[in-house]
Amino acid sequence: MLEDLKISVCDVNLELVKRGAVIYTWGNVSGISSDGKYMVIKPSGVEYDKMSPDDMVVVDIESGLRVEGKWNPSSDTKTHLALYRKFKSIKGIVHTHSVNAVAFAQAGIAIPALGTTHADYFYGDIPCTRELTKQEVMEDYEANTGKVIIETIDNGGYDPMAIPGIVVKNHGPFAWGKSPENAVYNAVVLEKVAEMDLKTLALNPKAEMETYILDKHYMRKHGPNAYYGQC
Amino acid sequence: MLEDLKISVCDVNLELVKRGAVIYTWGNVSGISSDGKYMVIKPSGVEYDKMSPDDMVVVDIESGLRVEGKWNPSSDTKTHLALYRKFKSIKGIVHTHSVNAVAFAQAGIAIPALGTTHADYFYGDIPCTRELTKQEVMEDYEANTGKVIIETIDNGGYDPMAIPGIVVKNHGPFAWGKSPENAVYNAVVLEKVAEMDLKTLALNPKAEMETYILDKHYMRKHGPNAYYGQC
Amino acid sequence: MLEDLKISVCDVNLELVKRGAVIYTWGNVSGISSDGKYMVIKPSGVEYDKMSPDDMVVVDIESGLRVEGKWNPSSDTKTHLALYRKFKSIKGIVHTHSVNAVAFAQAGIAIPALGTTHADYFYGDIPCTRELTKQEVMEDYEANTGKVIIETIDNGGYDPMAIPGIVVKNHGPFAWGKSPENAVYNAVVLEKVAEMDLKTLALNPKAEMETYILDKHYMRKHGPNAYYGQC
Amino acid sequence: MLEDLKISVCDVNLELVKRGAVIYTWGNVSGISSDGKYMVIKPSGVEYDKMSPDDMVVVDIESGLRVEGKWNPSSDTKTHLALYRKFKSIKGIVHTHSVNAVAFAQAGIAIPALGTTHADYFYGDIPCTRELTKQEVMEDYEANTGKVIIETIDNGGYDPMAIPGIVVKNHGPFAWGKSPENAVYNAVVLEKVAEMDLKTLALNPKAEMETYILDKHYMRKHGPNAYYGQC
Repeated sequence: MLEDLKISVCDVNLELVKRGAVIYTWGNVSGISSDGKYMVIKPSGVEYDKMSPDDMVVVDIESGLRVEGKWNPSSDTKTHLALYRKFKSIKGIVHTHSVNAVAFAQAGIAIPALGTTHADYFYGDIPCTRELTKQEVMEDYEANTGKVIIETIDNGGYDPMAIPGIVVKNHGPFAWGKSPENAVYNAVVLEKVAEMDLKTLALNPKAEMETYILDKHYMRKHGPNAYYGQC
Repeated sequence: MLEDLKISVCDVNLELVKRGAVIYTWGNVSGISSDGKYMVIKPSGVEYDKMSPDDMVVVDIESGLRVEGKWNPSSDTKTHLALYRKFKSIKGIVHTHSVNAVAFAQAGIAIPALGTTHADYFYGDIPCTRELTKQEVMEDYEANTGKVIIETIDNGGYDPMAIPGIVVKNHGPFAWGKSPENAVYNAVVLEKVAEMDLKTLALNPKAEMETYILDKHYMRKHGPNAYYGQC
Repeated sequence: MLEDLKISVCDVNLELVKRGAVIYTWGNVSGISSDGKYMVIKPSGVEYDKMSPDDMVVVDIESGLRVEGKWNPSSDTKTHLALYRKFKSIKGIVHTHSVNAVAFAQAGIAIPALGTTHADYFYGDIPCTRELTKQEVMEDYEANTGKVIIETIDNGGYDPMAIPGIVVKNHGPFAWGKSPENAVYNAVVLEKVAEMDLKTLALNPKAEMETYILDKHYMRKHGPNAYYGQC
Repeated sequence: MLEDLKISVCDVNLELVKRGAVIYTWGNVSGISSDGKYMVIKPSGVEYDKMSPDDMVVVDIESGLRVEGKWNPSSDTKTHLALYRKFKSIKGIVHTHSVNAVAFAQAGIAIPALGTTHADYFYGDIPCTRELTKQEVMEDYEANTGKVIIETIDNGGYDPMAIPGIVVKNHGPFAWGKSPENAVYNAVVLEKVAEMDLKTLALNPKAEMETYILDKHYMRKHGPNAYYGQC
C-alpha cells in the first residue's frame, strides 16, 4: 500500500544525508497519505545507505499501530503522530540532529528572525520548546515531545505552516511542510539559518530585524499577492 | 538573441553552486550585453540543477521589461537594473545568501579590510547599507534595495569597481564586476574574506590593517603599474 | 593469523578518513582477538591511502611484544594495551586528532552532556584527563597516558562502556567500544557532539541538561528495556 | 632543465587545492634544486586546474632572474628567494591564504603551541611577524616580507626547521620544509592547528601546554632517539 509515498519518504530521507543534515541513523522523515489516515515513516535504527522504499513503515494515524512494514517505525513515531493529529495542514515531518540547530536547542533559545533568508520561509522566530518535566519524560517521552511542540505553537498563537519548524530543548529540530519534500526543504533552511544566526550573534549580540522586512519577504513568497518564483 | 551571454550567465550561476555559495534557488547572476541595452538574468525560483541557457531571461535595461524568455526573471531584477543604469562600468552582478557574508549583513556591520586577501580585490571595507525604511520596503522593495546600494557607494565617494561588493542590511551580499564571471569571482572572494574576518574578530576584536598595505596589495594587482599575474 | 580482524581493523581505520576524523597518518584504531590474547593495530606513521590489512600489526596483550607484522605498531600501542588489560569489556579502541574534540582537550575541559545526541551514546560528561606530570611524560609517556585515562574513569566511578570515550589533556580524544567498528562509531559521535557543544557554549555559556533527560535517552537505547532500533 | 623538480612542484601545488588550502590562483609552492642554485616556482596568476609541470618557472637563486619558463614567476618570488638564501636547510616553501591561519595573521597573534598535534611538527609557537613599515612596503614589498620573516626567526633564536612556518601580519602563512612535499605537509598542519587553536581559545582563552609535553612529542618524532613511525 501507498507505494508512491514510500518512494517519496525514502527519497527525502536520503536527501537529508546528501544535504549533510544527518549521519548514521540519526533523523527521520514521515509523510501522510492523501486521505489523512496513514503515515509512512523511516524504520528505527536502520542506516540510510541500506534503506529502500520497502523498508518504510506504514502506521495508522488514529490508532498509532503499524499496519505494514517489516521493521519497527522510528522511535519518534509518537511525536510525528501527535503533530499530524493536531494540525491537518501538515503533510510531512522531519527530525534531524543537524549541528547548528542542535546548538540552539541545547542553548535553549529560539532561532531569531534576523534576515531575509529566514523571512523567506519562516514568518517569525523559530521557537525553542520548554523543557519536558521529569514526569513527562518518564511517562510517555515521545508523545510528550509532541505535546510541548503543540503547546509552544498554541502559546505563540500562530499557524504552524507559517513557521514550519521548532527546536526541542536539549534535543534538536523538527520541521514540517505541505509534503515530505517540503518538510525536508524547511529542515535544510532551518539548519542554514541557524548557522547564519550563530555567526551573526558572534559579531553582534544585539542584531535584529525590523518586522516590516520580515513581512515583506515572507509575503512576497507566501502571501496572497506573492510574486517570487513562477507563480 | 544574446545566446553567448545566456551560456555565460547560466554557467556562472552553476559555478555559484559548485563554490558552495548558494543552495536551492538562492542567489542569482546577471550579465549585460555589449551594447549596454539588455540584461540576461537567471529566472526566478528555478532550481540550479535543472537550469540551462534557454531558461535565462532577457530584460530591456531602460524599460525593465522582459523581451525574451519563458520564465519570470529573478525577483531581484529591479536591484540589478538600478545598478546597471547607474554604473556603466558594471557588466555583471551577483546576489547570494552565502553564510559568512550574510552574518555581516545581519549584524549590520561592514566587512573590514583586515588583510591582503581582501586588499587583492577590494580597495577598502566592504560596506553594509543602511536599513530600508518601512516606506521603501512597502512601495518598491527591490528597486529601493538598488537605491540604498547606490546611496552607500555615493556616500562613500568611491568607484564601485574598486570595491565590487556590498552587504545589504538584514539581507545579504551583492557583488559585481567587469563580466558575469568576474562578478561571481568577486562574490566568492567576498564570502571567503567574510569568513576570515569573522574568525579574526573572534581572536582580536581590535584587529586592523595599515592603509599602506591595502594600497600596496590593491595596486600591485589593479594599479597602473600592476605586476601581479601575467600582465 | 587473525586475518578477519586485520581486515576489520584496516577497514575502520579507513572509515576514519572517510568521516573526516583524521588526515595523513594521524589517529589509529585497534581491535582485540576473541580470546582476548592479541591486539591488531594500525602500523605507526603509515599513510591511510596506502594501507591494506597486511600492514596491520599483531601485538601480544600480556607481553606487549609484536608477534606478527612487517611494521612497527602505532606509537600509541602502550596506551591501547593499558586499556585492554584493565577493562575486559573493551574490544576496540580509537585515537584521533579530530578538531572539535581536540579543542576541548586543549582547553582542558570535559565535553558536557548538553543534549540527546550525546545522551544516546555517552551516559554523562565525556571527561578530560588531568595533565601528565613531567615524570610521567619522561619515564613512559604512552603507558602513562593509559594510566591517566584509567585513573579518570576510576575516579569517576563509572563503567567505561557507559561513557566510551575521553579527551586527554593537551592531546586529543580516545574512544572505545564492543568492537573496532563500534569504537570508530563512538569516535565520530564524540567529535560531532564536541562540535555541537562548542557552538552551544558560544550561544549560552550556562547551557545544561536535566539528568532525567540523559537517563531517558541513554536507557531507551542501552537500558534493559531499550526500544530504540530493531531490538 | 630540472624536469623532476617541476613535476614535484606542480604536483604539490595541486595538492594544496585538494587539501582545501587554496582557491583560484591563491598561494604558491617552490622547490630548490639539489645543488642549491635554482628555484622552481609556480607562475603568477595561473589557475591551478590549468597548470602542468611545463608552466613552472626556473629562477636563479643568486641573481633572482628567470632562467627558464614561459610565464612570470609567482609575485612572491622575492620572499621565497630571501628564505632560500638565508637558510640552507630549507628545500621547499609554501604560501597560502588558508582561512584559519589568515585569521591569526590578521589578528596579529602567534598560533600558540596548545597541543600535541602542534608539538608533533612545530617545536614552539608559530610566530606572527611584525607589521612591515610603510617604507618597507613601498620600496621592496616582497623582499621585505622575506626580511621580516628572517628577522622574526633570528629574534626568536631558533632553527627554522624546528618551527617550519610563520604567519605574516595582515597577510597569511608561509611554511617550509626539507622538500616541496614536506613544505606543503607543514602548511596543511599549520592550517589544521590554527583551526584547533581558534576553537580552543573560544572555549578557554587561558589554555596552555606544559613545555615538557611539547618537548616529548616533538622529540619522539624528530629527536635523536625518535621512535615515531618506521624509523
